[in-house]
Amino acid sequence: MRMAIEWISLTTDYGLADGFVAACRGVIAQKAPQAQVIDVSHAIPPQDVRRGATVLAQVVPYLPPSVHVAVVDPGVGTGRKGIVVVADEGILVGPDNGLLLPAAEALGGVQAAYELSAEEYRLDTVSHTFHGRDIFAPAAAYLTLGVEPQDFGPELDPETLVTLPEPKVVVASQRLISDVLTVDHFGNIQLAAQVRDIIATGLLLPGASVRVQIGMHTIDATIGRTFDDVEPGEALVYVDSAGHVAIAVNQGFASSMLMLGQRNAVCEIRR
Amino acid sequence: MRMAIEWISLTTDYGLADGFVAACRGVIAQKAPQAQVIDVSHAIPPQDVRRGATVLAQVVPYLPPSVHVAVVDPGVGTGRKGIVVVADEGILVGPDNGLLLPAAEALGGVQAAYELSAEEYRLDTVSHTFHGRDIFAPAAAYLTLGVEPQDFGPELDPETLVTLPEPKVVVASQRLISDVLTVDHFGNIQLAAQVRDIIATGLLLPGASVRVQIGMHTIDATIGRTFDDVEPGEALVYVDSAGHVAIAVNQGFASSMLMLGQRNAVCEIRR
Amino acid sequence: MRMAIEWISLTTDYGLADGFVAACRGVIAQKAPQAQVIDVSHAIPPQDVRRGATVLAQVVPYLPPSVHVAVVDPGVGTGRKGIVVVADEGILVGPDNGLLLPAAEALGGVQAAYELSAEEYRLDTVSHTFHGRDIFAPAAAYLTLGVEPQDFGPELDPETLVTLPEPKVVVASQRLISDVLTVDHFGNIQLAAQVRDIIATGLLLPGASVRVQIGMHTIDATIGRTFDDVEPGEALVYVDSAGHVAIAVNQGFASSMLMLGQRNAVCEIRR
Repeated sequence: MRMAIEWISLTTDYGLADGFVAACRGVIAQKAPQAQVIDVSHAIPPQDVRRGATVLAQVVPYLPPSVHVAVVDPGVGTGRKGIVVVADEGILVGPDNGLLLPAAEALGGVQAAYELSAEEYRLDTVSHTFHGRDIFAPAAAYLTLGVEPQDFGPELDPETLVTLPEPKVVVASQRLISDVLTVDHFGNIQLAAQVRDIIATGLLLPGASVRVQIGMHTIDATIGRTFDDVEPGEALVYVDSAGHVAIAVNQGFASSMLMLGQRNAVCEIRR
Repeated sequence: MRMAIEWISLTTDYGLADGFVAACRGVIAQKAPQAQVIDVSHAIPPQDVRRGATVLAQVVPYLPPSVHVAVVDPGVGTGRKGIVVVADEGILVGPDNGLLLPAAEALGGVQAAYELSAEEYRLDTVSHTFHGRDIFAPAAAYLTLGVEPQDFGPELDPETLVTLPEPKVVVASQRLISDVLTVDHFGNIQLAAQVRDIIATGLLLPGASVRVQIGMHTIDATIGRTFDDVEPGEALVYVDSAGHVAIAVNQGFASSMLMLGQRNAVCEIRR
Repeated sequence: MRMAIEWISLTTDYGLADGFVAACRGVIAQKAPQAQVIDVSHAIPPQDVRRGATVLAQVVPYLPPSVHVAVVDPGVGTGRKGIVVVADEGILVGPDNGLLLPAAEALGGVQAAYELSAEEYRLDTVSHTFHGRDIFAPAAAYLTLGVEPQDFGPELDPETLVTLPEPKVVVASQRLISDVLTVDHFGNIQLAAQVRDIIATGLLLPGASVRVQIGMHTIDATIGRTFDDVEPGEALVYVDSAGHVAIAVNQGFASSMLMLGQRNAVCEIRR
């Protein structure tokens, strides 16, 4: 028998205004009042599955062993499956749309997956548009109470789960082309490229000057470790706290400087 | 003697930036450290009593038995009363301005109401502008500690409590006119009309085409169950997760499509 | 030996979208699962140290005895120290940039201060840009577990800690000139001047008319106690719930009426 998990994490695109998160929280409180809840984010941009997957994957290494509920779910009420994914260091619950898998990788990889189909572990009435409240939150509550993942429905071959397309990272001598992964609250631009992708290229030589281009916009930047390694208003290329290559502006917003508004962008860094 | 309640829910228009919610939370933690707190919403638009009442009423059915504190309170510091309302399945605390009553209905109806006037259950110093911290949060804390509702002040006739005007819902054959109740984080437009209001009209025939009008703006929509029942960018009329008639756009924002910005709007749906 | 503290408060400029707060929360949950956490604010404007200091100082009097973690930290990763500050009624953890000291004053004054340098009380890997997660959250967790402040590093002379410049308050007969301290969620303008600064001037005579000027913009206002003391749309000068002189508009936004956008502003109130 597996060890009891007492923590539940919540990641959604519900926002905090309408009470949607509170309804999920209340369902958990009713069914599993002993469970402790950590909110990862409820400000994932609406229906931005990749962003939800990225935020969750970067936070889970710092959470205690948990049932991680994630709901960014444009396909709610359609044929898309609800799933429970067992990873080495946690359990994930949500839609089968690629949202959960990067976090599962960060938790040591997928051990097994099951469909969320058992009606006894849902609310009595299930809406067509709010499975976070009606299916996923109850599943998480029951998982903390000791219900086993296989009790929720038939086992699924992990190879058949929906995955997100791999972000593009191309590394050449003195040159990196990478999809932008996220832009954070401080306007820092995080690339899909990780430090391990480019460690051999010599591109991240401390103090070196590079040129950063996103779309039509180009800025000069310096390779550094932290914001203060460059003058206020100047740009920095660094390895961020999640191990990704990132661009920041000391006391400023890199995303504004590079006019980065759209979701899908490609960044080129070259010496 | 009544059963102990260990949960407190909080609904305010305080926002999360200024620490106002934290001050309430801290007062509860000091007086009733055993109480568990669920935040329903702190992003009610400033002083929008109806919106606060609606959000709270739609969330309370999913919360455990709680003391529900709600503060959207344009009349703070004036003659308006503070009240505690006992419902069948919970207790509510807040201003007597109509904010609490829809939730009390959703919790089985008002059993009794009392004025919040006893000074021993307030902070020692009561400000003129922050009764959430100084009066309502302490009252909730004491209620979880077993203080009885009637200990807070004189009983009030529930018939004398301030109520909000009933939203307008007019149903005719093949036609519905209803006040807009809320626009949520996804731009979905929730009407005051509930499924029970129109079940007999035949207006919600699955797959039927309808015309939706708000103010000067009109769109065509299809009756469906979930977003994916229509093509991306197309509009859907459906019954939402709270049982209300609602308008959504698959992978889009219905509120933008209908140019819905103002608070008070009337929607007409016709075949 | 000091009394155990079971509460941790968190004040940051991290926002709630990116999971930064959740990572801190998770580190606390892993190291000190018994600790209870109150979020003061995570919507401090990015790198606005004074605003963070003000919000925290005004909330701490209402929190239970806590370890208060605050991170508004433009200098992260540079030579600025991390510190633990022991006050009469709580312990504060964060960067040595003036952020913590107003709250320490509100908690009875600084008793002692220590540098946060001991490596055994940090995460195994410390990033250059996220000390909230890697240094400050672990320190708070260990403090709730009974680790003593002096165990974190060498004692610092409180006189050597970095302080913020004192806000300007000039009081004359019938006239007050004061820095603006904050603008809250309701558009209410809080001045640095406190009621004790001007009690002797006669400026706050209830019902008196005053003129309020910020920059080029001037409005007429009435001295009162609460919003409803003036007609809707009219301006009020009052003592707010934190004891500061403030300007509000009944059912409106004083900050909009005075075109107050910038951070640093000076307000003059005169009879």
